[in-house]
Amino acid sequence: MTIQIINGPNLNLLGVREPGIYGDTSFNDFLPRLRALFPDMQIDYFQSNHEGQLIDKLQEVGFTCDGIVLNAAAYTHTSIALADCIKAISAPVVEVHISNVHQREPFRHQSLIAAACKGVICGFGLDSYRLAVASFKP
Amino acid sequence: MTIQIINGPNLNLLGVREPGIYGDTSFNDFLPRLRALFPDMQIDYFQSNHEGQLIDKLQEVGFTCDGIVLNAAAYTHTSIALADCIKAISAPVVEVHISNVHQREPFRHQSLIAAACKGVICGFGLDSYRLAVASFKP
Amino acid sequence: MTIQIINGPNLNLLGVREPGIYGDTSFNDFLPRLRALFPDMQIDYFQSNHEGQLIDKLQEVGFTCDGIVLNAAAYTHTSIALADCIKAISAPVVEVHISNVHQREPFRHQSLIAAACKGVICGFGLDSYRLAVASFKP
Amino acid sequence: MTIQIINGPNLNLLGVREPGIYGDTSFNDFLPRLRALFPDMQIDYFQSNHEGQLIDKLQEVGFTCDGIVLNAAAYTHTSIALADCIKAISAPVVEVHISNVHQREPFRHQSLIAAACKGVICGFGLDSYRLAVASFKP
Amino acid sequence: MTIQIINGPNLNLLGVREPGIYGDTSFNDFLPRLRALFPDMQIDYFQSNHEGQLIDKLQEVGFTCDGIVLNAAAYTHTSIALADCIKAISAPVVEVHISNVHQREPFRHQSLIAAACKGVICGFGLDSYRLAVASFKP
Amino acid sequence: MTIQIINGPNLNLLGVREPGIYGDTSFNDFLPRLRALFPDMQIDYFQSNHEGQLIDKLQEVGFTCDGIVLNAAAYTHTSIALADCIKAISAPVVEVHISNVHQREPFRHQSLIAAACKGVICGFGLDSYRLAVASFKP
Amino acid sequence: MTIQIINGPNLNLLGVREPGIYGDTSFNDFLPRLRALFPDMQIDYFQSNHEGQLIDKLQEVGFTCDGIVLNAAAYTHTSIALADCIKAISAPVVEVHISNVHQREPFRHQSLIAAACKGVICGFGLDSYRLAVASFKP
Amino acid sequence: MTIQIINGPNLNLLGVREPGIYGDTSFNDFLPRLRALFPDMQIDYFQSNHEGQLIDKLQEVGFTCDGIVLNAAAYTHTSIALADCIKAISAPVVEVHISNVHQREPFRHQSLIAAACKGVICGFGLDSYRLAVASFKP
Amino acid sequence: MTIQIINGPNLNLLGVREPGIYGDTSFNDFLPRLRALFPDMQIDYFQSNHEGQLIDKLQEVGFTCDGIVLNAAAYTHTSIALADCIKAISAPVVEVHISNVHQREPFRHQSLIAAACKGVICGFGLDSYRLAVASFKP
Amino acid sequence: MTIQIINGPNLNLLGVREPGIYGDTSFNDFLPRLRALFPDMQIDYFQSNHEGQLIDKLQEVGFTCDGIVLNAAAYTHTSIALADCIKAISAPVVEVHISNVHQREPFRHQSLIAAACKGVICGFGLDSYRLAVASFKP
Amino acid sequence: MTIQIINGPNLNLLGVREPGIYGDTSFNDFLPRLRALFPDMQIDYFQSNHEGQLIDKLQEVGFTCDGIVLNAAAYTHTSIALADCIKAISAPVVEVHISNVHQREPFRHQSLIAAACKGVICGFGLDSYRLAVASFKP
Amino acid sequence: MTIQIINGPNLNLLGVREPGIYGDTSFNDFLPRLRALFPDMQIDYFQSNHEGQLIDKLQEVGFTCDGIVLNAAAYTHTSIALADCIKAISAPVVEVHISNVHQREPFRHQSLIAAACKGVICGFGLDSYRLAVASFKP
Repeated sequence: MTIQIINGPNLNLLGVREPGIYGDTSFNDFLPRLRALFPDMQIDYFQSNHEGQLIDKLQEVGFTCDGIVLNAAAYTHTSIALADCIKAISAPVVEVHISNVHQREPFRHQSLIAAACKGVICGFGLDSYRLAVASFKP
Repeated sequence: MTIQIINGPNLNLLGVREPGIYGDTSFNDFLPRLRALFPDMQIDYFQSNHEGQLIDKLQEVGFTCDGIVLNAAAYTHTSIALADCIKAISAPVVEVHISNVHQREPFRHQSLIAAACKGVICGFGLDSYRLAVASFKP
Repeated sequence: MTIQIINGPNLNLLGVREPGIYGDTSFNDFLPRLRALFPDMQIDYFQSNHEGQLIDKLQEVGFTCDGIVLNAAAYTHTSIALADCIKAISAPVVEVHISNVHQREPFRHQSLIAAACKGVICGFGLDSYRLAVASFKP
Repeated sequence: MTIQIINGPNLNLLGVREPGIYGDTSFNDFLPRLRALFPDMQIDYFQSNHEGQLIDKLQEVGFTCDGIVLNAAAYTHTSIALADCIKAISAPVVEVHISNVHQREPFRHQSLIAAACKGVICGFGLDSYRLAVASFKP
Repeated sequence: MTIQIINGPNLNLLGVREPGIYGDTSFNDFLPRLRALFPDMQIDYFQSNHEGQLIDKLQEVGFTCDGIVLNAAAYTHTSIALADCIKAISAPVVEVHISNVHQREPFRHQSLIAAACKGVICGFGLDSYRLAVASFKP
Repeated sequence: MTIQIINGPNLNLLGVREPGIYGDTSFNDFLPRLRALFPDMQIDYFQSNHEGQLIDKLQEVGFTCDGIVLNAAAYTHTSIALADCIKAISAPVVEVHISNVHQREPFRHQSLIAAACKGVICGFGLDSYRLAVASFKP
Repeated sequence: MTIQIINGPNLNLLGVREPGIYGDTSFNDFLPRLRALFPDMQIDYFQSNHEGQLIDKLQEVGFTCDGIVLNAAAYTHTSIALADCIKAISAPVVEVHISNVHQREPFRHQSLIAAACKGVICGFGLDSYRLAVASFKP
Repeated sequence: MTIQIINGPNLNLLGVREPGIYGDTSFNDFLPRLRALFPDMQIDYFQSNHEGQLIDKLQEVGFTCDGIVLNAAAYTHTSIALADCIKAISAPVVEVHISNVHQREPFRHQSLIAAACKGVICGFGLDSYRLAVASFKP
Repeated sequence: MTIQIINGPNLNLLGVREPGIYGDTSFNDFLPRLRALFPDMQIDYFQSNHEGQLIDKLQEVGFTCDGIVLNAAAYTHTSIALADCIKAISAPVVEVHISNVHQREPFRHQSLIAAACKGVICGFGLDSYRLAVASFKP
Repeated sequence: MTIQIINGPNLNLLGVREPGIYGDTSFNDFLPRLRALFPDMQIDYFQSNHEGQLIDKLQEVGFTCDGIVLNAAAYTHTSIALADCIKAISAPVVEVHISNVHQREPFRHQSLIAAACKGVICGFGLDSYRLAVASFKP
Repeated sequence: MTIQIINGPNLNLLGVREPGIYGDTSFNDFLPRLRALFPDMQIDYFQSNHEGQLIDKLQEVGFTCDGIVLNAAAYTHTSIALADCIKAISAPVVEVHISNVHQREPFRHQSLIAAACKGVICGFGLDSYRLAVASFKP
Repeated sequence: MTIQIINGPNLNLLGVREPGIYGDTSFNDFLPRLRALFPDMQIDYFQSNHEGQLIDKLQEVGFTCDGIVLNAAAYTHTSIALADCIKAISAPVVEVHISNVHQREPFRHQSLIAAACKGVICGFGLDSYRLAVASFKP
């Protein structure tokens, strides 16, 4: 079973960026721990600050992998293009957020991509990724 | 470890009510299967159509149990009183929904209680409950 | 043929409450006159100020009676839970109002339950109930 | 007792237009059946696609007939002139709709004329006209 | 000097319609008194309940008369077509209202045609027409 | 003179709930001190988390007591049913809040019941109740 | 192949009305040139300032002609009745505008009829009509 | 008969300020011409840039003069205090504007004081003052 | 203990202005009665129609007196400058209103200064001032 | 004559993506057919999922080609940068859409770029491109 | 070269008022330091809490000085009269703010005067004044 | 001291693009003049039309340079991702605009990034850059 994790803008700064909100663990530190929890799954990882590259990647893997875990970060709230892309591909996509976006600025309460995704998981810190991967393994 | 599941209005009709949206499994059928997945956790269950009874129950267990899984159903979108209650108690609360509320009517896109909860999980059918319980067991 | 009339909050004060708007006849005085107009129908009556009890009653009779006449009063404008309940049951529900709600405060112009009902009748005083019952007898 | 039925734009296409919403009976087929139900009432009929002709007709009969049943169709949602006319005449006007407008597009949820009418009946198919006429015969 | 007065929907009922708001003088009674005040001006009069006939009349006289006094009544608030027509013709148009529209329902506070007119006069009863005609005679 | 104090949802947790906002005194500790300040008044007390029970209580005492002090808490902002009830009874109702609701979330700035009450007092901590009782003793 | 062109209010003033926006060619001058471009099509023409006459014409030709080119002018933005009519007939309708409505007042950015039409063409001057007719000849 | 003209902020710059909108005549030049048109009326004049001074002046003359012509300029759109003052005094107030405010920025389309005035006259240049004074002399 | 009462625009007309809303007692008549109720407090009084003078006075006394009772009247709803001033001074300010502002026009439901004040008291007629002064004497 | 066609995000999936909306023909299959219809025009093609690359391409060709046909897809509704670019270049741009965007989600009804374009063509399937190219060949 | 600095309401409390936002330096302490930085410019200073006095001062100096630095404080967000005044005078005006108003309450994000000014500088503490003066000295 | 200037989309066309708004000087012509004014500062320059590249660059220099001058152009109004990036880095960022954005379309009045920046400078033409650089050199 192949799962693709896709992280959007500024998530390459995880561990550095606003640790009060996002914690002080980088995604590179977290990824091996996540893979260890799901030894029978192949978990691929991609990050980009470019909306276009996120779309390219979704199209590239979106017809072959078994599931996609997408943290679109700020693009969650502004990108109809990502939503269109998710609807265009066949793999199911789970939207995740590290923080509980509902406790933050009002513009983060609205997700343009949620309706195109299978489900949404937010607020559990990096553990949101574990739950999202687990959702593909009933 | 004690987890309280609380279901709100009309969820007692699960399996009967709009199966295209909510599936055809009743919660009573589902509960033993859920408990079997977490043998070392005590999972208690409560359902009511009354906003006041949901608040009473949250207050009753909210200072002693280890976690609460709350599907407030329609009250999610109208009850500030539930949100106040969640903030007043000490146990962490995870908001769940069976359907992906973002694919439905606009008034279901807004949750008045999400900001008071630890996190939100929606869209995975009854599996949303499994992920919510799993979030308390890192 | 069995018809259930369900009255919501403060309608137990009919005849006392704001007679300029609601008239000075109590529902208990009106009910025998209504039943006399439809001798071949069984007309049951229930009133509650509790949203939860209204939902409980709708669920109780909603799979067996032939029609429901619902005056949800103030809950008409605030209760998504009632709307969900009406959609979940199988008996057809007719929404009624004594006053013409469109002549009153703006918040009374919007009904959260109308879309879940079969039809709406408002503005005919207590006669709205007669027309609603008549709608079940073509 | 004289009752005037007035139908607005596109209702001359009844039976042809969107039968899924409006049914497949034309108003000409329906009218004799309606008259048969109320043998002691004179029921006159008028239809026009012109807002101005509807106003002219309301003014013509609005000081002499005993009641008006008005299905203003699309003008329900856009015509302040019709609302002003209904307030200017003395005969009571009942607003009717064949479909349950609350189940359709949001712009059909708002009636500019409802506040000027005595009451509103919608959602019962052509039977809405029967109930409206019955409202004038207590 | 030729001045055209154009009255919109329901103003043929002046003197009959809601006298508390519009007074109890009909326009036919008022017109000779108005003409007497301006003996050196030709004052023509037209009334229609039809938006299309108002446009036809504006086009007919709008390139030859010296000024137009327009009380579009309810169409003031809904007719972009009238506004377009006023912009298309060359005669200056003064918008008048008998009542002070700002003291009435909110939808009467917005005029779609005011920006296309030379000026606006409202609130002086039938005297609004005198002031409007006077505006053409500096 | 008989005064009824009615407290809404979550106010039974006073002293425990968010002490930074609501203080650390429970209402049971406060009530004797309040009664001592008004020795010639009978001060009754009722609390419920149920909207329906608050309505029932208001109806029960609303035609006989001399005044009602109502802290509807979260229902202040969501309950038209409470507002209708206050209008239906004859005893004057004073709306109180412990915190200054205007310093908190925007949804707490709007009261659906204020227009039905005699007056509003907010922001003085538990002292708001003293001022409200004093308002009945000129 | 029969194509009906229908022009709405004030378009009879084309060439006279605001030439900076609409150009200085009248439709009568333009029509022969248009017909010459499509020698194998019968192109009929109708113009009216009356919303009701536009509906009457659409109903008259809407079940027999092969396509309709509709420039509803100002009624584009206010007429739900026209939209209902377009949905009720069987011939495909193409909405056209001479000017680019998106460069003008905000109220011209919204079309109430676009969703009922097959497609929209705007901004090409009178050439919009040529493209609309061409759309029926693949 | 005594008429008080009151001009608000920046109208002392008339003739200097944006002549394209307000013309190049100062009010001091205009006033004698206005007085000459109404020889039997005493026309007093006051101008201030201070909202408070405008209120003071309205209170000072508002119980004794026969009519007030008020051009509140920018305060038209922001001053509830002026509106309250107009309602508090007994002399009738006519709101005037030199320009047609409906042709300008959207915030100038809303008048907070119009509902408190007897009538409104706008768009006739300085001639608006003549019409306003004439409105007091039927 | 020194308490400063500050009254805003048009409150100098109390007793004269709209007695149906504000009563027929002038503040000068009321003040001695208020002082008699609090013999051990020095109660100073200031009124102005000028927003700037109200700010000047608040700054003048705002660092030395023990409490301020402010009825900002219409400026309550429009003056951010007053709100900034209240935040800048150290004396606690209680906002009062004679009428229940929530029963009046919608624009009176919003207070720009409430969030800067300690508390709000409204709806008790002139008795609102007594309760406000009493709030400073626990 | 050189025409540049520019397609935005996800249009590389044409034929695969939601065929119910976009049809089952890929753009690569369609392009030769389009070129065959205009043998005397050079038609260049570019597609990208990157907003920045679309801007780069518009700048590259925008001062030399004779016309641009732009289907900005989802960026139509979110990109002010594209609109600024279209205004900055000299070649005329025609906005096209395959589907009738007015029949879809509300956010697709608003185009941020339409006002910067020469005209808009939507709803004709791939035939929209033919009409757009034809618009450059009068 | 003569530059006029004009400070609005509550800025006379600088150094005392909310030092966390505005710093602890008074403007009187700051002014000499500012003048020392621009020895060849005459820098005049004026402060008032009165909107009317700010307008008077702007009119007084607005036709003779070389530039105006205006911190309108709270009036920035409420005063159309100030905006009108800035447009009426000939000297260029630069709007300044000490704090970054975009980091504060939403009502501070909107400036009614910005469009009338030459430019805006905010967020640099008292240094905003230095940059504003420097803008007049290229 | 190292300052990074970052220009967003379409600013590479400066001097060519809409000279009425942006002037006719290219940034390449301007840059040497700017550097000459600050001989002791190293001023680096970067421009891109790609939102992702702007984020990459901000991350690259955002932890080492002394200050960033950012003209995000159209992305100012649409990019939450840029705002998140500015908050994530440590160097202070000053937002600049060449034109006074408040004099242009309403959508340019809102900046999504201003709250994340230290300050904002707009409206001074290219001189905005000089003032921004000067803000880093007290």
